Amino acid sequence: MYSFKNDYSEGAHPRILEALLRTNMEQDEGYGLDRYSKEAIELLKEKIMNKDVDIHLLQGGTQTNLIAISAFLKSYEAAIAANTGHILVHETGAIEATGHKVISIASNDGKINSKDIEKVLNEHINEHMVRPKLVYISNPTEIGTIYKREELKELSETCKKNNLILYVDGARLGSALMSPTNDLTLSDLSTLTDAFYIGATKNGALIGEALIISNENLKDDFRFNIKQRGGLMAKGRVLGIQFLELFKDNLYFELANHANKMAEIINKSIKECGLDVLISSNTNQIFPIVPNDLLTKLEDKYKFTLWEKIDEKNSVIRIVTSWATKEDMARELANDFKKLI
Amino acid sequence: MYSFKNDYSEGAHPRILEALLRTNMEQDEGYGLDRYSKEAIELLKEKIMNKDVDIHLLQGGTQTNLIAISAFLKSYEAAIAANTGHILVHETGAIEATGHKVISIASNDGKINSKDIEKVLNEHINEHMVRPKLVYISNPTEIGTIYKREELKELSETCKKNNLILYVDGARLGSALMSPTNDLTLSDLSTLTDAFYIGATKNGALIGEALIISNENLKDDFRFNIKQRGGLMAKGRVLGIQFLELFKDNLYFELANHANKMAEIINKSIKECGLDVLISSNTNQIFPIVPNDLLTKLEDKYKFTLWEKIDEKNSVIRIVTSWATKEDMARELANDFKKLI
Amino acid sequence: MYSFKNDYSEGAHPRILEALLRTNMEQDEGYGLDRYSKEAIELLKEKIMNKDVDIHLLQGGTQTNLIAISAFLKSYEAAIAANTGHILVHETGAIEATGHKVISIASNDGKINSKDIEKVLNEHINEHMVRPKLVYISNPTEIGTIYKREELKELSETCKKNNLILYVDGARLGSALMSPTNDLTLSDLSTLTDAFYIGATKNGALIGEALIISNENLKDDFRFNIKQRGGLMAKGRVLGIQFLELFKDNLYFELANHANKMAEIINKSIKECGLDVLISSNTNQIFPIVPNDLLTKLEDKYKFTLWEKIDEKNSVIRIVTSWATKEDMARELANDFKKLI
Amino acid sequence: MYSFKNDYSEGAHPRILEALLRTNMEQDEGYGLDRYSKEAIELLKEKIMNKDVDIHLLQGGTQTNLIAISAFLKSYEAAIAANTGHILVHETGAIEATGHKVISIASNDGKINSKDIEKVLNEHINEHMVRPKLVYISNPTEIGTIYKREELKELSETCKKNNLILYVDGARLGSALMSPTNDLTLSDLSTLTDAFYIGATKNGALIGEALIISNENLKDDFRFNIKQRGGLMAKGRVLGIQFLELFKDNLYFELANHANKMAEIINKSIKECGLDVLISSNTNQIFPIVPNDLLTKLEDKYKFTLWEKIDEKNSVIRIVTSWATKEDMARELANDFKKLI
Repeated sequence: MYSFKNDYSEGAHPRILEALLRTNMEQDEGYGLDRYSKEAIELLKEKIMNKDVDIHLLQGGTQTNLIAISAFLKSYEAAIAANTGHILVHETGAIEATGHKVISIASNDGKINSKDIEKVLNEHINEHMVRPKLVYISNPTEIGTIYKREELKELSETCKKNNLILYVDGARLGSALMSPTNDLTLSDLSTLTDAFYIGATKNGALIGEALIISNENLKDDFRFNIKQRGGLMAKGRVLGIQFLELFKDNLYFELANHANKMAEIINKSIKECGLDVLISSNTNQIFPIVPNDLLTKLEDKYKFTLWEKIDEKNSVIRIVTSWATKEDMARELANDFKKLI
Repeated sequence: MYSFKNDYSEGAHPRILEALLRTNMEQDEGYGLDRYSKEAIELLKEKIMNKDVDIHLLQGGTQTNLIAISAFLKSYEAAIAANTGHILVHETGAIEATGHKVISIASNDGKINSKDIEKVLNEHINEHMVRPKLVYISNPTEIGTIYKREELKELSETCKKNNLILYVDGARLGSALMSPTNDLTLSDLSTLTDAFYIGATKNGALIGEALIISNENLKDDFRFNIKQRGGLMAKGRVLGIQFLELFKDNLYFELANHANKMAEIINKSIKECGLDVLISSNTNQIFPIVPNDLLTKLEDKYKFTLWEKIDEKNSVIRIVTSWATKEDMARELANDFKKLI
Repeated sequence: MYSFKNDYSEGAHPRILEALLRTNMEQDEGYGLDRYSKEAIELLKEKIMNKDVDIHLLQGGTQTNLIAISAFLKSYEAAIAANTGHILVHETGAIEATGHKVISIASNDGKINSKDIEKVLNEHINEHMVRPKLVYISNPTEIGTIYKREELKELSETCKKNNLILYVDGARLGSALMSPTNDLTLSDLSTLTDAFYIGATKNGALIGEALIISNENLKDDFRFNIKQRGGLMAKGRVLGIQFLELFKDNLYFELANHANKMAEIINKSIKECGLDVLISSNTNQIFPIVPNDLLTKLEDKYKFTLWEKIDEKNSVIRIVTSWATKEDMARELANDFKKLI
Repeated sequence: MYSFKNDYSEGAHPRILEALLRTNMEQDEGYGLDRYSKEAIELLKEKIMNKDVDIHLLQGGTQTNLIAISAFLKSYEAAIAANTGHILVHETGAIEATGHKVISIASNDGKINSKDIEKVLNEHINEHMVRPKLVYISNPTEIGTIYKREELKELSETCKKNNLILYVDGARLGSALMSPTNDLTLSDLSTLTDAFYIGATKNGALIGEALIISNENLKDDFRFNIKQRGGLMAKGRVLGIQFLELFKDNLYFELANHANKMAEIINKSIKECGLDVLISSNTNQIFPIVPNDLLTKLEDKYKFTLWEKIDEKNSVIRIVTSWATKEDMARELANDFKKLI
């Protein structure tokens, strides 16, 4: 059984473990004040081409989202998210547990636009309702689509005009940035958003997400929030060493590129079989619609996620590739689509 | 500069990194449902000699405390802790951030006893006050002292009699259990408490605390709490592999024993110098009271923590040893006490 | 200008103020432990024909909802509500501020049914999502519709089967119970739900909502929750005296009946004018769809709420009657619809 | 049995009920936007001699404290209070339930001073601890003592210097301001504090506390906080009408003066009997230390609170007078002290 179930089925990229080994017995400060974390942060600032940001290295996506969003909002302020948004559906109410409502926007492609936001603003007009204050988007979205530069720019302008915070969940940001249709850069993200995070757990690290805060008003005392929510690692070096390894050359991008390429191999086969997809994606998550008997046959050889039933005869499955996906297994799956259909 | 500042100044014990390397490219389930996490949990149950517990592998101490305590308490229920208690002073109000008061008990030795608890119960008598419901103790305490079996038994009985939950923060539990004056076992902890955790971050792991829940009423749906507070690791295997390595033989205890031995070397010298200690400790944290000029000289060679000023001429410092402390450095520090005083 | 804007535009029914005057200088216990509150609670138990309930007298609707729902749920549990639900849209995220998500169900008539609930349950299947645990309905709903006995029975069975709590917001319960199409009784509510509240603020009292808890598991220590959320009135007698006056005969029901009758007068005229309504209602809130020029003319003489724009030429307005609505003003408005159209 | 148990044993001062009756059938806006609430707020600004304040009329003390303090603080910020502070001991953890720690300061007279504050600041130095941000004091304190102008000024300066918010719980503020040893004015309070509240529930109203916010940074969007915590009354007029009546002449101060006078009658007798007091008080709460047999005799005729046991033979009792205390009953109690001792 080979797994295409997610992008966290293996450990870390070997270079990361080697870096941990290499530095293992050096003594250093705790709680992210070690030299590696500091170097990693400086390196990330260079990659982002923006020195005026604060960067915090955190452990996981849900943790990053809940710490950032609860830190950014006053108690009566709410986040806005697409109805597929991870904070809305797959984080066990983590944002609400910090006291904040998440307002849902109906979306077919996992993305939200300025009109959606303005509609929400028009519906929230006085103190009997929450105050919408933060726009949460994921790039890529939870269904594999990505934001184009123009789209993010428009969102950014809408947010600035309406005094909203624009926050990007980048759990799989590498895959978005390496998508063939992408035209966004890390630098764009830092100038067009108030905060975003670069996910590493799903792109080669054991754990690790780097939160970048551009908005000056959101920076103060952020480490208090991290500590209070249980996110300040005693051995913060573990995060610093990993990010340093991923970004000291292009490893982060190469790994994401590999994941995308593996998805493309499978995607191509799906199209050639004449199968539809739930939504067209150029990133490392693909959502073919498969007849139920094909589903059964695939399940004998592969692990993947049954996403939803479309009708009596067809289901959507989710296939995820990663930095660790073996090319021969991607090709085998691609062939099996054709063979087993 | 050699650091005696804390027990998380280095990475992980080499065997742990080797185990991570060895298993690195195996595919497995996410979120702690992998084979290693499951095996580690079964192994821990054996070591605890109690199959009727639920075990969850978490990342850090503050995270474990806040998830467990908020899961165990209703909104108007409070925790009781010694005034030195980690949740009371060093977790940035993490428990309060989940909605619960922590009631402080004045304590000279970092421990609390049945009388302290009964006093709190007598002062909280109606719905205008919080309901004390959980007794939080640390073993060893934050100042290095440990609970004897008889003391824990008495606390346990008081808690049972008063329908209180007894919870033990075991961030440095290994050091307590390997202390020469200790008479407690893991098995005792599981029968005398409602929940406790075995800390690994400070005893050889990169990250990792194992929460053991004995009380049947506290077990249900616990993973929902973990996820909601941002504690469910995508690559949960990282925790499982580490605990498996630490407990498949006696590594966990050997590492703690080493830390204690290193402290003992330094402790002996302190006594021989005629220096007092803030409190007598047989674990890996020691608190000598040193004249200020000795303090200055020591600071040239070693890192440690200035704990508090005693008077114009003397200060308490905290020296922490660990699994990684080099014996020759412990001896050098021991000698320097005598030489530099 | 006569106001049909809401049912809390005046003070209290004169009998209530008389009762407050009559008892004013008697000394009694604070915090709802006075004789009047106790008598009121016993009287309500009789009216409900159920002695096995706990009753708490609270001050307002949002307060009652947030205290009850936060007391009933564990931190990862969520409420389900229709998309028009008061807790979802008009309480400034009060439920979320206590840590709980409110799951929205699309509804055209303000009501939810078993299928809606089962759909939500099917979508919330593991610890990555909140656990739906409480079904919140309003009777009448926020758009004036009511639940029939059969509908509530079905909901009740669905909730029992799925271990869900059924909670009814009765801010305008009197109006529902006196609606000509109603077949529910207070007794039904106490046996078919786990908790519900009888609203008095909108039916003749200065303040006051009576929360009735039938489910044994939800009763313990409830006063701790009231106090903690700021809802325990020092002069709790003010609530007791009012409920006693409203229920010692049929005053509560007579007042609601008057409000409904006044609405019916206006409703009849609307139909005779050939105007549509947003939704058919037999309670004290009606939602005619009016041409914009009629809207303008009505605004010269009356206060009411502009609910929403339907198209370029028509708008929905909300007209609310109450125990205090003068019959001649209801008739004048009814006539003006015909005259001004 | 005559009650000296508290100052909320009766209803409202008759003039307040008359005012409610007089205005009862007038139609007005809900949620505190009515003419009476607006007039009351303007009137209070005049009395305070400060137009640059925001004033909100709320229902009870715990509610006011929790809404204000949670609105003023970021999640990692804490309040500081004397160990007798109402928010610390008698509000069921209401502040913690909004996520904030309350730091306790040991105090013998219920007051805190600059040194206490500076000590707390010195102990909270980094992100592993909460950030002390708000100083909570009560005037009079929970044990009847009051702050002199000089004391408040010093606190105010310490708070300004350290960027702390100074907040005064004025549940019994009238009694403090009418105390013979008082030299503070409402105007002083508005200039020396960031926010304070004028309590009316314990000085003649049915319900009602007026929160005055002077600090510009704390004013924005405050009504969102009120609504979210369940404190926005539909019939807000009930609060406005009462405050208007209490402050349109000197009623508020006359009532407080009466309460103090009644306490003084009893106090004088206690001194003449040679009985000690727990703490000397010039306000409406007194704390005599009585032999147990006197206690028993008094309990036959009067209600009061047993505050604490001093030793085997003596107890502290709390006697509270109010606007409603009958002079002949105060004199009777005063005589009974002499007669029954």
